[in-house]
Amino acid sequence: MAYDFWYWPTIPGRGEFVRLMLEACGIPYTDRARDKGADAMLADMADHAGGPAFAPPYLSIDGSTVAQTANILFYLAERHQCGPSGMKSRYWLAQLQLTIMDLVAEAHDVHHPIGVGLYYEDQKAEALRRAAEFRTDRIPKYLGYFERALIAERGDWLAGAPWSYADLSLFHLVEGLRYAFPRRMATLAAQYPAVVALHDRVAALPELQDYLASDRRLPFNQDDVFRHYPELDAP
Amino acid sequence: MAYDFWYWPTIPGRGEFVRLMLEACGIPYTDRARDKGADAMLADMADHAGGPAFAPPYLSIDGSTVAQTANILFYLAERHQCGPSGMKSRYWLAQLQLTIMDLVAEAHDVHHPIGVGLYYEDQKAEALRRAAEFRTDRIPKYLGYFERALIAERGDWLAGAPWSYADLSLFHLVEGLRYAFPRRMATLAAQYPAVVALHDRVAALPELQDYLASDRRLPFNQDDVFRHYPELDAP
Repeated sequence: MAYDFWYWPTIPGRGEFVRLMLEACGIPYTDRARDKGADAMLADMADHAGGPAFAPPYLSIDGSTVAQTANILFYLAERHQCGPSGMKSRYWLAQLQLTIMDLVAEAHDVHHPIGVGLYYEDQKAEALRRAAEFRTDRIPKYLGYFERALIAERGDWLAGAPWSYADLSLFHLVEGLRYAFPRRMATLAAQYPAVVALHDRVAALPELQDYLASDRRLPFNQDDVFRHYPELDAP
Repeated sequence: MAYDFWYWPTIPGRGEFVRLMLEACGIPYTDRARDKGADAMLADMADHAGGPAFAPPYLSIDGSTVAQTANILFYLAERHQCGPSGMKSRYWLAQLQLTIMDLVAEAHDVHHPIGVGLYYEDQKAEALRRAAEFRTDRIPKYLGYFERALIAERGDWLAGAPWSYADLSLFHLVEGLRYAFPRRMATLAAQYPAVVALHDRVAALPELQDYLASDRRLPFNQDDVFRHYPELDAP
């Protein structure tokens, strides 16, 4: 039976990490809010008396929810045995995924340092300040960590073969950073060859080609977690 | 064999969620950095060629690490069968825990909206702005969610009996918010009776009394995730 998957219908956002896994693992799903709209999603969220979700993305299962991006991926990996499945690998992948999600949250807060209730334009001065540290310290710290993790595994993937959801997610993270901070990422690319090679390996996965070329994959845009404001980028 | 647990030795921080579980579940551990100091922890972090941690807290296991707070708790719950263990409960608890950690991150960013590399005093103007939305919108949104989750479970605990690590964590979250925002929390308390009752239930757990009265439990302070700056609080 196909999963009921719910996420904002107009942005890749955090939902994209789930979409990539569902697609690459060949797990049937229905992208409900793309069919029914965001209002239907908000109604669905309010309707889960047992086991509500705090925010999308989530899977709706038997009146309950599986929410929080990293948790959804961990759940799907266990349930569908997609990716390395030993206990050590499972928690190693969850650790990496949660670290990816931390960087995603920081990338969001670069353009929303004061709060989600305000427009970017109303917190632009603060965003300019926050972006400097993000470019200079945070991106290198995280990418350096993933580089080290890949080198530690001495293989093509973050937890050995076969590829896992964390590999898919690191691919999308690099895509997002390149969209939002193209000048900075151009400068940094040479310092993280293992991360870049992993990105390219995922982009070439046969299991993803149909999805990547389809309109099921939403383009980055200025309502997303990753946003390109030229004034926040620099080499 | 006792776990090697590593976290900053002078603050409760994110490590406290792990300490609470280790203590309440009766899992043997050594709080390594409290014995050896923060420099020993940094040296240990640099030493994990296979499976490094991005940041503390982490468990050091056979040359590898289990890091990311929610991941550590999920791992310990599975390995030591502490708390509800059905598949649905396990992912429900992880979902709640990750949502708790999101609020912890937001509570931190209230006093560090621009970056971790700057002192509070160097981002105080931005902190004053961010604190307003945090107090008015974010705390109620999260506490309202946990209230709803507790009511959905129709019992004493977040995932039915017995208590789980998420119950311990929600207790500590309330403690932290009360420390950092005492005036705001005094105003809000009456709106979230199930959350407050859960807090009190955890505080009275026989399994925690020894720990809570011991010096193994570190007091909140101004180097922590939760900090009390009176100017950031309001009714």
